[in-house]
Amino acid sequence: MRNPYKKEEPSASALVQIIVRITSMRVHSIAIADPPLRSSYGLHSPYALRTILELESDDHIIGISETHGGDAIAAGFESLKSKIIGADPYSLCGSLLPMIEDDPHGTSLDRSQTYYVPGENPLDAAARLYSAIEIACLDLIGKTVGKPVCDLLGGRARNEVPFSAYLFYKHAGGGGEGSDARTNEDEYGEGLTPEAMVHQAKQMIAKYGFRDIKLKAGVLEPDLEIETIVRLRRAFGPQVPLRLDPNCAWSVETSIRIGDALKDELSGTGYLEDPTSSIDGMAAVRKGLLETGNRMPLASNVAVTSFADLPEAIEKDAVQIVLCDPHYWGGLRQVQHLGKLCRTFSLGLSMHSNSHLGVSLMAMAHAAAATPHLAYACDTHYPWQSEKDEVVAGGRVPIIDGCVRIPDKLGLGVELDHDQLARGRERYKNCPYRKRDDAAEMRKHVDPHWQRVLPRW
Amino acid sequence: MRNPYKKEEPSASALVQIIVRITSMRVHSIAIADPPLRSSYGLHSPYALRTILELESDDHIIGISETHGGDAIAAGFESLKSKIIGADPYSLCGSLLPMIEDDPHGTSLDRSQTYYVPGENPLDAAARLYSAIEIACLDLIGKTVGKPVCDLLGGRARNEVPFSAYLFYKHAGGGGEGSDARTNEDEYGEGLTPEAMVHQAKQMIAKYGFRDIKLKAGVLEPDLEIETIVRLRRAFGPQVPLRLDPNCAWSVETSIRIGDALKDELSGTGYLEDPTSSIDGMAAVRKGLLETGNRMPLASNVAVTSFADLPEAIEKDAVQIVLCDPHYWGGLRQVQHLGKLCRTFSLGLSMHSNSHLGVSLMAMAHAAAATPHLAYACDTHYPWQSEKDEVVAGGRVPIIDGCVRIPDKLGLGVELDHDQLARGRERYKNCPYRKRDDAAEMRKHVDPHWQRVLPRW
Repeated sequence: MRNPYKKEEPSASALVQIIVRITSMRVHSIAIADPPLRSSYGLHSPYALRTILELESDDHIIGISETHGGDAIAAGFESLKSKIIGADPYSLCGSLLPMIEDDPHGTSLDRSQTYYVPGENPLDAAARLYSAIEIACLDLIGKTVGKPVCDLLGGRARNEVPFSAYLFYKHAGGGGEGSDARTNEDEYGEGLTPEAMVHQAKQMIAKYGFRDIKLKAGVLEPDLEIETIVRLRRAFGPQVPLRLDPNCAWSVETSIRIGDALKDELSGTGYLEDPTSSIDGMAAVRKGLLETGNRMPLASNVAVTSFADLPEAIEKDAVQIVLCDPHYWGGLRQVQHLGKLCRTFSLGLSMHSNSHLGVSLMAMAHAAAATPHLAYACDTHYPWQSEKDEVVAGGRVPIIDGCVRIPDKLGLGVELDHDQLARGRERYKNCPYRKRDDAAEMRKHVDPHWQRVLPRW
Repeated sequence: MRNPYKKEEPSASALVQIIVRITSMRVHSIAIADPPLRSSYGLHSPYALRTILELESDDHIIGISETHGGDAIAAGFESLKSKIIGADPYSLCGSLLPMIEDDPHGTSLDRSQTYYVPGENPLDAAARLYSAIEIACLDLIGKTVGKPVCDLLGGRARNEVPFSAYLFYKHAGGGGEGSDARTNEDEYGEGLTPEAMVHQAKQMIAKYGFRDIKLKAGVLEPDLEIETIVRLRRAFGPQVPLRLDPNCAWSVETSIRIGDALKDELSGTGYLEDPTSSIDGMAAVRKGLLETGNRMPLASNVAVTSFADLPEAIEKDAVQIVLCDPHYWGGLRQVQHLGKLCRTFSLGLSMHSNSHLGVSLMAMAHAAAATPHLAYACDTHYPWQSEKDEVVAGGRVPIIDGCVRIPDKLGLGVELDHDQLARGRERYKNCPYRKRDDAAEMRKHVDPHWQRVLPRW
């Protein structure tokens, strides 16, 4: 650990590297209560699954990251253990780069996650593993050298990262099963009507100060979802940008009809996200909208899920805003690459989210801080998770005026509460869920014959 | 400088950043002997101008970088001094990002450096300043934390970076004026015929082990340049890729004729670089070549000099290989972004060079090491510079088997020899050159009426 440059008379010939090695890896599969949120994928199960990765150095400094949960990703980390233990956290990401540089599937898989819930898409399986390792290494490095992660990535373009209110149609219930279900407050109550969603938005904005609103759609009849957006616009005014995301539930014709009905409401810095499936479907919607002079941008995290999708999407003008996600696109540096690419091709850049805790929230905030082009407010499910399940020491990360502030702390800026982590592991052990399956939950609780048929309308 | 994570019992509440500040900046304008090399820009003057930037921290650690020379860039650094002094080297690049994120010229300037010698293109003036600051910060950080620069950038994709032999038609002379001219050996002698260029290549390859050859063309009649390439192929065989770069000296028709004449010689991993000017011109050459089934790739660092040029170049299939340059594209991270963009759009990536010393060579090597897609051998003028002018402590950086090896040293892996630096400054002071002007040199030494007329043939 001696740095020859710090001697009084540095010797040019005696340059010795300061070596930090990763000496242990711990993978924590946890379950966190999740309310019965609806989407075109189906229904959220009572627990969302997450994975917390810890990489510890021989200096006893611990780097952490969070990603989606289940047995498959935990096994993925274990399979890489021999490459991780003993590695220098600075060079590990370089040595693992072939995982994400060479698309392991090439053209052998359908290039879309239309029919996969996020976290279960085989196209980005390697990128998801890589991301979590990169983020934990960056946290470890930041805590070792005394810097926030965004500054390790070239410095920050912003100190405050805006997030968006994320509304969901939902059944009554606060998440969890058994004693969890009994003690978890149903903070937002049932939300299955346009009126209820305005109430949900008011509650969420009052608590967090969000300045953008996203509605997860593809759940009710299209006219009710149109009405929801119209009521939100009436309640919050044109200064609050609105986003609508039915996760491919609509046909091209329905998408154009809804886009035209909401031309004013989704204009400006709002957008229509994944109204229909596939690059060709999105291009057809765009074409149809443009024919009536409707320049509403289309955003996507379904038609476009990786760099390999971009050339075709750009050529066909299928997507005007890419929704990145550091968990799925290969980590924070890949999000920076994507940001420059989007800027170069005049595409917007926003950020996708899944149910998550504070470690992921901070990784998302650092990614956005270090990516100048990421100017849209990021999505976050954070309001749907409970303080009771937070694994971050000191409790939940504050969202103030809709923003997460990059703290004057090292690495990601958060550490683990090991009692809370143990509680999450215990829940994981005791709950029956091992991967995300929203369709199965839908059949169990809402309609025993439910299938995810696309387009539904 | 206390890191709270290194205590026995780290305290979550007492996270204190370790602050390193830049306390001084030194800008060294130097002149180095340069032989009378020819190109379509004209003639190299007896001295190439370079600038060495030193940024020193309050820990007395010094980060260095090298860029093109002259009074203008030195004044540019001075104008940024108030932003640099006192800054944290980790966050400085983030705070300066608007310099390169927002193209200050937009569409107000011709988007091509056809008529500018590299280093004098107003389009990349801000990127050139930013690059040198970023590289010096990375060197400073690497020397502070004990890591090579490429590992600060996400880890290396390769340890050995291949460079290409760079042949120039040249007049007799070893560079420099007065006593410099008398003592500088004319190592390669006059090279104004096809035969002489084969000899030059053999000499250079024997000394450095290069496995690729680039010929700077646009100097002799096209048929003599064709003959030069044919003779090089005959001398070195198909296993040595050949590149030909006339810097826009040819019309579209001449470019197609030469491309067809050299179809075999420039195929495989060779390429034809900037045969003609402008994106439209390059696209017309590409179209003409493809019509005869000639898929020889076209490379460019003239039609495409910045991210803003890429959408049109890609749409028109004008360029198949982009020549990046960390000095001109905004530094090492921007080269990484460009690498991912090129990979995404199935473009190749190679690297441009200007007359330079060992500090630049190391920055180029680290850029290539940290950019997986940069698989082409990089250009380098290094063989044309003299050991006598090297400012790197311990003498010139070794090129072995055509490669620069990333050394097990901190930062860029080199330090300054201050006596040599003083010698370079003295030469700068005494020589009459303050910017690069190859046309003026051409008029002075070769043809008093010479003008850079494009296309010349």
